[in-house]
Amino acid sequence: MQLRRADVLDGAIAILDEYGLGDLTMRRLATSLHVQPGALYWHFKDKQTLLGAIADTLLADVDAMTNAGVWDDQLRELAHRLRDALLSHRDGAELVAATYASRLVTNRIRERIAAVCIRAGLRRGESELAADTVLYYVLGQTVDEQARMQMDSAGALTESASPLFESPDPTSRFDFGLTLFVDGVRARLGDRARLS
Amino acid sequence: MQLRRADVLDGAIAILDEYGLGDLTMRRLATSLHVQPGALYWHFKDKQTLLGAIADTLLADVDAMTNAGVWDDQLRELAHRLRDALLSHRDGAELVAATYASRLVTNRIRERIAAVCIRAGLRRGESELAADTVLYYVLGQTVDEQARMQMDSAGALTESASPLFESPDPTSRFDFGLTLFVDGVRARLGDRARLS
Repeated sequence: MQLRRADVLDGAIAILDEYGLGDLTMRRLATSLHVQPGALYWHFKDKQTLLGAIADTLLADVDAMTNAGVWDDQLRELAHRLRDALLSHRDGAELVAATYASRLVTNRIRERIAAVCIRAGLRRGESELAADTVLYYVLGQTVDEQARMQMDSAGALTESASPLFESPDPTSRFDFGLTLFVDGVRARLGDRARLS
Repeated sequence: MQLRRADVLDGAIAILDEYGLGDLTMRRLATSLHVQPGALYWHFKDKQTLLGAIADTLLADVDAMTNAGVWDDQLRELAHRLRDALLSHRDGAELVAATYASRLVTNRIRERIAAVCIRAGLRRGESELAADTVLYYVLGQTVDEQARMQMDSAGALTESASPLFESPDPTSRFDFGLTLFVDGVRARLGDRARLS
């Protein structure tokens, strides 16, 4: 039977969920799919390209249109969607953080966030930098949040360090940081308004 | 000759600089130091503990007092110091990002940033969340910046994706995000002033 690209991706995500990013090798993936490694390279020229495609699968639809009406709610909705997607699979945040640099990820979340900032009134260049800032915050935050949850599940954290007993809860902590960035964008819009 | 803790750390950082985080194993480290692996475990009970100690070595003095006079310049100085430290060794940002979750890092940069926010006028709880936000932004940004620099050195990026041809340059991009954050803190102080 023909090995399809989607089969490779499904198999890779299954290994990710069960064993984690450190155990996701081309050899192991080939074994789990009962094919020779060469069959994988027909679909993905190297592991980095495969990781980019997995990142795109995890991020599917995070860059869809937002339902919120005003720009700051739109920014929040996009950031929450991104966080939810990163946390939905084991090591998802680390995988996307590590892959993002390669520019192999085709998801357009950065452009979507920048577009919200442009419509809010920022210049294009500023909007792209603001989008990077939000992305870096979400990636840094979710890598730490997910690593701590996973360490806690493995019994590697003391009870006082457990995210389960954290106050405020992780979602509220995430919201706090988002609010700082949204207020920073608003301050920049205010400067613009005073100058024009 | 007695193997000292500092020798183990120096050896680990030498492997990091030459081969990267992926090649830093206890076995390889023992070989490079001409000792049995057991000699390492006398100083560090597991690899995670060693990574925490390496992170502390990379971060040495980033949590020292700042020279700047006003709180926003102090915040910028701390964030820049942290970025410089993370970029000073190969895979430094990734190592600290991965280790931070374990809470094995004893460096007090988080407390130093929170203290600046407290003196600026934020409540203690808000100040700790604000410190987390800055840390997550700096970690997310430097992991991406360093990964791209290293991929570019390895010839894995096209010229248009090279950070060397990026405009504005990486330090200016970093500053833009910091400004959004500082303005967000300032907005929160403004709300406080109006309420009191």
